[in-house]
Amino acid sequence: MTGIISQGEKRLVIVTGRAHPELASEVARELDIELLPTSAYDFANGEIYVRFDESVRGSDVFVLQSHTSPINQWLMEQLIMVDALKRGSAKRITVVAPFYPYARQDKKHRGREPISARLVADLFKTAGADRLLSIDLHAAQTQGFFDGPVDHLWAMPILTEYVRTRIDPEQCAVVSPDAGRIRVAEQWAAKLGGVPLAFVHKTRDISKPNQAVANRVVGEVAGRTAVLVDDLIDTGGTIAEAVKVVLAAGASDVIVAATHGVLSDPAAKRLSESGAREVVVTDTLPITADKMFPQLTVLPIAPLLARAIREVFDDGSVTSLFDGNA
Amino acid sequence: MTGIISQGEKRLVIVTGRAHPELASEVARELDIELLPTSAYDFANGEIYVRFDESVRGSDVFVLQSHTSPINQWLMEQLIMVDALKRGSAKRITVVAPFYPYARQDKKHRGREPISARLVADLFKTAGADRLLSIDLHAAQTQGFFDGPVDHLWAMPILTEYVRTRIDPEQCAVVSPDAGRIRVAEQWAAKLGGVPLAFVHKTRDISKPNQAVANRVVGEVAGRTAVLVDDLIDTGGTIAEAVKVVLAAGASDVIVAATHGVLSDPAAKRLSESGAREVVVTDTLPITADKMFPQLTVLPIAPLLARAIREVFDDGSVTSLFDGNA
Amino acid sequence: MTGIISQGEKRLVIVTGRAHPELASEVARELDIELLPTSAYDFANGEIYVRFDESVRGSDVFVLQSHTSPINQWLMEQLIMVDALKRGSAKRITVVAPFYPYARQDKKHRGREPISARLVADLFKTAGADRLLSIDLHAAQTQGFFDGPVDHLWAMPILTEYVRTRIDPEQCAVVSPDAGRIRVAEQWAAKLGGVPLAFVHKTRDISKPNQAVANRVVGEVAGRTAVLVDDLIDTGGTIAEAVKVVLAAGASDVIVAATHGVLSDPAAKRLSESGAREVVVTDTLPITADKMFPQLTVLPIAPLLARAIREVFDDGSVTSLFDGNA
Amino acid sequence: MTGIISQGEKRLVIVTGRAHPELASEVARELDIELLPTSAYDFANGEIYVRFDESVRGSDVFVLQSHTSPINQWLMEQLIMVDALKRGSAKRITVVAPFYPYARQDKKHRGREPISARLVADLFKTAGADRLLSIDLHAAQTQGFFDGPVDHLWAMPILTEYVRTRIDPEQCAVVSPDAGRIRVAEQWAAKLGGVPLAFVHKTRDISKPNQAVANRVVGEVAGRTAVLVDDLIDTGGTIAEAVKVVLAAGASDVIVAATHGVLSDPAAKRLSESGAREVVVTDTLPITADKMFPQLTVLPIAPLLARAIREVFDDGSVTSLFDGNA
Amino acid sequence: MTGIISQGEKRLVIVTGRAHPELASEVARELDIELLPTSAYDFANGEIYVRFDESVRGSDVFVLQSHTSPINQWLMEQLIMVDALKRGSAKRITVVAPFYPYARQDKKHRGREPISARLVADLFKTAGADRLLSIDLHAAQTQGFFDGPVDHLWAMPILTEYVRTRIDPEQCAVVSPDAGRIRVAEQWAAKLGGVPLAFVHKTRDISKPNQAVANRVVGEVAGRTAVLVDDLIDTGGTIAEAVKVVLAAGASDVIVAATHGVLSDPAAKRLSESGAREVVVTDTLPITADKMFPQLTVLPIAPLLARAIREVFDDGSVTSLFDGNA
Amino acid sequence: MTGIISQGEKRLVIVTGRAHPELASEVARELDIELLPTSAYDFANGEIYVRFDESVRGSDVFVLQSHTSPINQWLMEQLIMVDALKRGSAKRITVVAPFYPYARQDKKHRGREPISARLVADLFKTAGADRLLSIDLHAAQTQGFFDGPVDHLWAMPILTEYVRTRIDPEQCAVVSPDAGRIRVAEQWAAKLGGVPLAFVHKTRDISKPNQAVANRVVGEVAGRTAVLVDDLIDTGGTIAEAVKVVLAAGASDVIVAATHGVLSDPAAKRLSESGAREVVVTDTLPITADKMFPQLTVLPIAPLLARAIREVFDDGSVTSLFDGNA
Repeated sequence: MTGIISQGEKRLVIVTGRAHPELASEVARELDIELLPTSAYDFANGEIYVRFDESVRGSDVFVLQSHTSPINQWLMEQLIMVDALKRGSAKRITVVAPFYPYARQDKKHRGREPISARLVADLFKTAGADRLLSIDLHAAQTQGFFDGPVDHLWAMPILTEYVRTRIDPEQCAVVSPDAGRIRVAEQWAAKLGGVPLAFVHKTRDISKPNQAVANRVVGEVAGRTAVLVDDLIDTGGTIAEAVKVVLAAGASDVIVAATHGVLSDPAAKRLSESGAREVVVTDTLPITADKMFPQLTVLPIAPLLARAIREVFDDGSVTSLFDGNA
Repeated sequence: MTGIISQGEKRLVIVTGRAHPELASEVARELDIELLPTSAYDFANGEIYVRFDESVRGSDVFVLQSHTSPINQWLMEQLIMVDALKRGSAKRITVVAPFYPYARQDKKHRGREPISARLVADLFKTAGADRLLSIDLHAAQTQGFFDGPVDHLWAMPILTEYVRTRIDPEQCAVVSPDAGRIRVAEQWAAKLGGVPLAFVHKTRDISKPNQAVANRVVGEVAGRTAVLVDDLIDTGGTIAEAVKVVLAAGASDVIVAATHGVLSDPAAKRLSESGAREVVVTDTLPITADKMFPQLTVLPIAPLLARAIREVFDDGSVTSLFDGNA
Repeated sequence: MTGIISQGEKRLVIVTGRAHPELASEVARELDIELLPTSAYDFANGEIYVRFDESVRGSDVFVLQSHTSPINQWLMEQLIMVDALKRGSAKRITVVAPFYPYARQDKKHRGREPISARLVADLFKTAGADRLLSIDLHAAQTQGFFDGPVDHLWAMPILTEYVRTRIDPEQCAVVSPDAGRIRVAEQWAAKLGGVPLAFVHKTRDISKPNQAVANRVVGEVAGRTAVLVDDLIDTGGTIAEAVKVVLAAGASDVIVAATHGVLSDPAAKRLSESGAREVVVTDTLPITADKMFPQLTVLPIAPLLARAIREVFDDGSVTSLFDGNA
Repeated sequence: MTGIISQGEKRLVIVTGRAHPELASEVARELDIELLPTSAYDFANGEIYVRFDESVRGSDVFVLQSHTSPINQWLMEQLIMVDALKRGSAKRITVVAPFYPYARQDKKHRGREPISARLVADLFKTAGADRLLSIDLHAAQTQGFFDGPVDHLWAMPILTEYVRTRIDPEQCAVVSPDAGRIRVAEQWAAKLGGVPLAFVHKTRDISKPNQAVANRVVGEVAGRTAVLVDDLIDTGGTIAEAVKVVLAAGASDVIVAATHGVLSDPAAKRLSESGAREVVVTDTLPITADKMFPQLTVLPIAPLLARAIREVFDDGSVTSLFDGNA
Repeated sequence: MTGIISQGEKRLVIVTGRAHPELASEVARELDIELLPTSAYDFANGEIYVRFDESVRGSDVFVLQSHTSPINQWLMEQLIMVDALKRGSAKRITVVAPFYPYARQDKKHRGREPISARLVADLFKTAGADRLLSIDLHAAQTQGFFDGPVDHLWAMPILTEYVRTRIDPEQCAVVSPDAGRIRVAEQWAAKLGGVPLAFVHKTRDISKPNQAVANRVVGEVAGRTAVLVDDLIDTGGTIAEAVKVVLAAGASDVIVAATHGVLSDPAAKRLSESGAREVVVTDTLPITADKMFPQLTVLPIAPLLARAIREVFDDGSVTSLFDGNA
Repeated sequence: MTGIISQGEKRLVIVTGRAHPELASEVARELDIELLPTSAYDFANGEIYVRFDESVRGSDVFVLQSHTSPINQWLMEQLIMVDALKRGSAKRITVVAPFYPYARQDKKHRGREPISARLVADLFKTAGADRLLSIDLHAAQTQGFFDGPVDHLWAMPILTEYVRTRIDPEQCAVVSPDAGRIRVAEQWAAKLGGVPLAFVHKTRDISKPNQAVANRVVGEVAGRTAVLVDDLIDTGGTIAEAVKVVLAAGASDVIVAATHGVLSDPAAKRLSESGAREVVVTDTLPITADKMFPQLTVLPIAPLLARAIREVFDDGSVTSLFDGNA
């Protein structure tokens, strides 16, 4: 046969944006490799420059970015990185976005709104992403926004395993801060052994973000440790209000658990003063000093990411990493 | 200036598939027009043939189909119609799918599943659809599956207006049959004037469709007329079980309301024997004789569709038709 | 070099839809492998659910479906399977459609018709198919409808080899039932050693499917065994009529041969009563009990499919499998 | 309502490439308009430059090119014109290719061949064409190669109307030069009033273009005027051979009719010496002096094109222009 | 004809992002219309929310944004606006980006770099933009990065007209600060009446942005007013250095002219201390107080934008607005 | 695990068009392989036929073509080859176009022009090209026209290394024939050790190709050997004029160097009579006998191409091959 024949090989490479390089470093450490050296800086007018310092030809590249504030900058940086990888002949490009940007704008609440979560999926695709990897999407339907494989990981086991050590399952109840999140609360209730379930019935004015009017608890919490669960905590308004309502309804104690600690100001203040005994999140987003407060516990997410990346590279099964509901 | 210049015109045309032609006829009657004559039949091996009997060149065409069983046949028929319209030089093609097919497969519950609701959106796009128009999507996120404008109409006002005439708002409660639908129930509760809210806490084995194990009511329903609300009723298993659980919890009476009456066998039997006083749906799907039962009330959806189509054609605002939450 | 390097591997996987699983099983047996276990069922309203029970990550997957009646259901099932494979990170997806659905609607006979054969190709592409594999397309041009590689296999050698054992080449003539299929008949005539060629000159009313008015034989058949050849037999009307016309023109005997035995009702009755000595087809489509009749001979197609799939997987040459004209 | 509102208008514009500007001029004359002035020339190394000398913004532009030799140059010129129209904000671009380039490479005859007719359709689409308009495609399936509307015109009425004046229908037969074109011959036979049909049974070595080995006539032609019909005449080898075979079979006379007079050298010599009484073609391609010969009759195609363009612009029905089979 | 026919209309709408609303207001004022009311704000974590307060259905919408710092935020905002317009059924969407973001990253200077200017074009397209309108692109080739019409306006007449009033053409020379911009300088020299041309020969370390090492003037400037021209001034380093070099070479005076006043810190300080008599820019980007300095003159760009938008809406010719070279 | 698992392999294959097969042969010889046997010829009307005589399944194919006159023919041939490779299941297809066709039409100089260089990139993509490889693009921005990896090689080291042996660096100056090419001249000046730089200030009437009016030299050349550099020499008008102007300005001697020797008639005459001592080009384009003249030196480009192709196949770094600026 005419030509040159040689053995096929595949190479796993991890690169990171500048939003939360520590997370990427931890993932790399778990995998016992180095991050691929990358140059990145801002021009004077804010335009971002990126260049990879080693060849990425033929590689299976995972591009990590943590979409914290200033979120648009980190999103553009990741898009630019993907473009550079595509033009640099990477073989396969997986965008790793532990916290999916604009996940909450996943539908038109009213006419003439964008669906930014779909837009983001299309931007990644256009830049050159072949695949996405994310954790605990705000709505699982967001998987369907991307035209390609999405590995949707599930951080709940990390959180439930920890919370189980902090409560007496016989004396607790799982509470959703919001009618829209009861599905997740239901899974928590099952995981903790079939404990009671409740939710806070409130109204939210959709034209004003980050505000909510909590009303009253539907379900039984009196005399129990309430485990308040959500996918993310942003300014903490909804959660802090829920803590108060739950305590007012007779709960003996409150533990808050969420995957993504956005913790925008004034979350730290609100949560530390809310009356909750403990607030548990993972580090999908960087928890900077100004976001910390005494009751906060941060669980590491790197082991889950590292395991998933390795399985994806090896064509192993990732299903076990989100076997539940995600 | 070189060439021929003439006045621009636009022409509204409605065509229908064979699944539920009565609905299209009613829509046309509301708009005071005729449906465009269309030939359609099946070849002996089931392949579908479609041809439009009048020119569609330059027209703004709305293609109605009602996705009832056999659903795959009606979906293919609509795709074939869209293809014929595209090749026949229609100017703009709007797929009208009052009940969106495969709406419930909107995410991967487990690994190696399809996201058929996204697939359907892509199939419509590929065939040549420029826009979609649907009613009360199972998940509002499905809007984001289509790469183009989606007019998502909201049938709740039709249902709440009717139900309000059948209950005493002072003595009722809105109940969600399921943790996943409380958001809709919350809107009903608000619409009916801030009545109490409850839900049935149950577990559902995701690998076995149309089955559910209902447990108990969370929230207060004793002595009240329970208004059980959902987006669709398929085999009626979940709803019938919920009716029983709600009555067991002391409700004085139950009214069931849902937009889409799929009513697959044995829904008629289950619902008529469930103990519910009345079951209210719209005719987004054909309610054939075998699906009827004494307690069933069917509200017409054609006026809503007709109004939306006219507004879309006139570049008017459709927002008022779904101003709420859809 | 930074990263992890490992040896590349490739994995051949075969999955099948529910239309004709026996064919897939035979193909797998020929390849000495198991089919990948798959769960598939219908929801009450006819929506299809599919899930693969083993990982398909990184695999070279062949998705078999046999497009028999109800053809739209089986087409949608295959599209849904392809979607699930794409989202499950299969490396390469080949749609295997031995009988290409809607192959006969390959052009607009009149204005405002669809070109459904092109639509089908686009639907496969959109769902995620990288390649197609089919046998004896109604028009070879259909290869060009798919934007990607099409392996177009040629079943004629299987048929001619068999028919040769049933006739005396010195005393036979090849007859096309129709002006449009003479090209194929010409190839048969050459394969059988340059025997005479004839065709039935008829008119077909294109607006009424499955009907034809046969007139008279052009060419010499008197005193010969007529071998009537076509790509497919649907309701058998054209073929049965041709048998009669050929016998009336003095043929001593008739053998009918076609690749695809669609055999829609009343084909079995028509053909068994047509006067043909034997009707030979392959099992690209399932030949259920109601389609059988005494004169029918069914030749197995699995060996051809298995050989082609293996060659495609191994990057061998498939050309020899269709070297002729197909 | 905010903004500026003005009346919509539409403007028909025709531009032409340099291959056969006379045809475009005639079409414009039929429509009573001027061609849009266009600058076009070749750079020294053969690269083509095109610029439109008037604005095309918002116009409905028809781009005529006649794909004669050097065919690749004229194809590229048309692609470049379409690109310039797209970038110049034309509203709708229709490629008018009376003779579709590469129409004969519409399938893979053997492995590792291109399907150039599909490629051409994709090139037009990529450059920016919204629609195609062509006449008597070699295979009607080529319509399906373009992802958009194709107006496929039918020149047969022009040819049959003329030929009818040159023969005695009682004493003629329609003959296909080739098994592959009998479909067209069948339509001619019907159009001429149900006259007899025949074809030349020959073998063609597919690896050597423009060569054919004609054998013998199947069907009755003795004592009749044979009307030999085809879609195109290239080097005339097949046709000239068919003329001889038909005369040898006893035909009293031969008239050749075809839509596209490619007439590559040595067609003029071959046809003038073939024994045919008359050879009739249209001027979809320029008939330059070196292609002419005494027996050649050229019918004008501009009226058909003009009528179709006007109907397309006016959103009228073009179907009547190809009502038959095309 | 079946259906409803009504008169076509078109509606011009202008919307603006939050980066430089004054510019959009001036454009609207020139056109004597109001901007379409729009709600836009940032969520606590920096995610942007946009909604249009009036219908945009069927409108010809121009979306203005001025890509100043923080440039990634304003770019994302514009993409989100385009997405909302697309989903809100706008008929045509033109992105107006007077200063094209990432225009300088228009090629790979070294391996493994992105081509961010192309990426930006693709992001606009993906979001739903049909057309682009920009002014004095850094490289005219950037027009080719967008798959659709680009109206590339030319601000030079505004600048030259003004500068002509500030100099004695008999005693001036046009100087390019850089070998790469001589093309533009050459056009200035022609516009000013064929005055002498020179450039600064320098080396630039491409791996360190915003830095340059100027060497010496090539060409004659002694005793003349040097008009230093460029497309943009960012930190002013290159320009300030060029002013010094030109003065050292004997120029009697220096005027600096550029279209885009990026003026990133420390441009104001550098330029005011550079020795230039005057620095002239337009307000394609907002010139905030901290960017101003005594020698700065800002010319309004709104009239040019307004005239172009009106011509585009009216299908008039924009060519006259960039007739030169841009 | 179900299925067949086998070792992955990769295979490098080179095919060539008919424009300059000697170049491909030299590249193959450098790599110590054979070209894949290919059949290609023209039909009588100029349509091209191509077929590969060996399987290309799963191969990493490089398709060489040299875009000399008749350039449209060779471009179409390459597109057709790419189509055949795609349909023949090649794994990866790299278009190798040492001289990029239509590279000079890389922007709209005026309204209503095409951007043919972008069109060409899109045509390659549409046909099925995954990657491009080219040398010394007229504008480096053309890399951004292709939606995928572009390996942009840099022939300058080959030229400078040779020229250095022909001059005394102490007594030379680098001259750009044109304001637009000074960037390249600046790189030459640096490469030759920081020698003086000059350019010819001329005006070019953009509506008339291949013509230019040279004026005068800006910069010092008196008494020096002028090295006139450009990316390509077409008809030689600009260069020959520049040689005269430079000599008139006192240069002692002139050497012309360019990557691409287009050398359209009358370049050979013009250059041989221009007064230049030597004209140096590479053989990216075939230098046929009629293009030769006594002062012409042709340097081989095959070693550079071979090295790049090998690195691309091996996933090595190509960056070193264009490390400079290209």
